[in-house]
Amino acid sequence: MNDLQGLYVRMAVDAWNSELKATNALLDKLSDEQLMREIAPGRNRGIYLLGHLTAVHDQVLPLLRFQETIFPELYGPFHDEPDRAVADLPSISQLRAQWKEVNDTLMAHMNKLPPVEWFTRHANISEADFPKEPHRNRLNVLISRTNHLAYHRGQLVLLVQK
Amino acid sequence: MNDLQGLYVRMAVDAWNSELKATNALLDKLSDEQLMREIAPGRNRGIYLLGHLTAVHDQVLPLLRFQETIFPELYGPFHDEPDRAVADLPSISQLRAQWKEVNDTLMAHMNKLPPVEWFTRHANISEADFPKEPHRNRLNVLISRTNHLAYHRGQLVLLVQK
Repeated sequence: MNDLQGLYVRMAVDAWNSELKATNALLDKLSDEQLMREIAPGRNRGIYLLGHLTAVHDQVLPLLRFQETIFPELYGPFHDEPDRAVADLPSISQLRAQWKEVNDTLMAHMNKLPPVEWFTRHANISEADFPKEPHRNRLNVLISRTNHLAYHRGQLVLLVQK
Repeated sequence: MNDLQGLYVRMAVDAWNSELKATNALLDKLSDEQLMREIAPGRNRGIYLLGHLTAVHDQVLPLLRFQETIFPELYGPFHDEPDRAVADLPSISQLRAQWKEVNDTLMAHMNKLPPVEWFTRHANISEADFPKEPHRNRLNVLISRTNHLAYHRGQLVLLVQK
C-alpha cells in the first residue's frame, strides 16, 4: 500500500513540478518590460498574473497545513481585486523573488511530507467532515493548483515576442 | 488498497471532468464568429484551438488502449501544422460535433475502466519497460491531458467579449 501511495503522490508531484518548471522557463525568457504588457488587448498584464500566481501558491502553504502565508499582502491586489484596481504594486523584480521564495518553501515542505500524509485533509475541511469526503485531501489541492498554473501559463506565453 | 486506488482515480477523473465542463461552458458561450477570431493579435484562432484539443483528445483513445482514433484527419492540420497553414479546415459546427463525440466516447470508456486498470501501462510504453517506469500508466495520461486542456482554456477565455 505504501508503494502504491508513493506512486500516486509521485504522479501528482511530477505534474506539479513539470508545470512549474515550464512556467519558470517562460518567466526567465520574459523581460520585466514584457511582463508589464497585457496578454491581449484590454486583458490582464503579465505583472498581474505573476502576482496572482504568487498569491495563490502562497495560500497553498496554510491550505496544505504547512505554515502561514509568507506574503499575505499580495492576496488583495492580485486575487480579490482585478488588474489595474490597485495602483501601487510591487516591482517585477520583487515579485520574481517572492514567486521563487513561495515555490521553494512549498517544495521544501512537499519533499518532507510522507506519501500517506498527502491523503489527509486539507485545511478547508474539518476533521469531522473529512471521512465523508476523503477526496478533499492535500493531494487534491496540488492537482487543482497544477491546473490553475497551466491555465495561466497558457496566457503568459502570449507575452513572448514572435 | 482498492479503496485507495478508487479514491485516487476519482480525484484525477474529477479534475478532468471539471476542466472539461468549464471548457464546454466556455465553448457554449462563444459564437462561431468569435471562434474564428485570434486569441491575441497574430496568435492562434479559436477554431485552431478547438480543432487542436479535439485532435489531441482523439489521440487519447488509442493512448489509453481504448480504441482507434475517430477523426485521424484532424491531427495534421490541428497538431502537426500551425494555424493558417491549412486553408481547408472543417467548419466550426462540424468541429463542435467532433469535439463532443470524442469526449463522449472517451468518457464512456473511462466510466467502464476499473480503478486497477488505470494503473496499467499506456500505449507508448512496452510491457517490458513498464515495470521499471510504473508511473507511465493510463492515469498519468489523463493527468497530463487535463493540464493541457487547462492551458488552452486559459487562452480560449480571451475570446469572450468584455
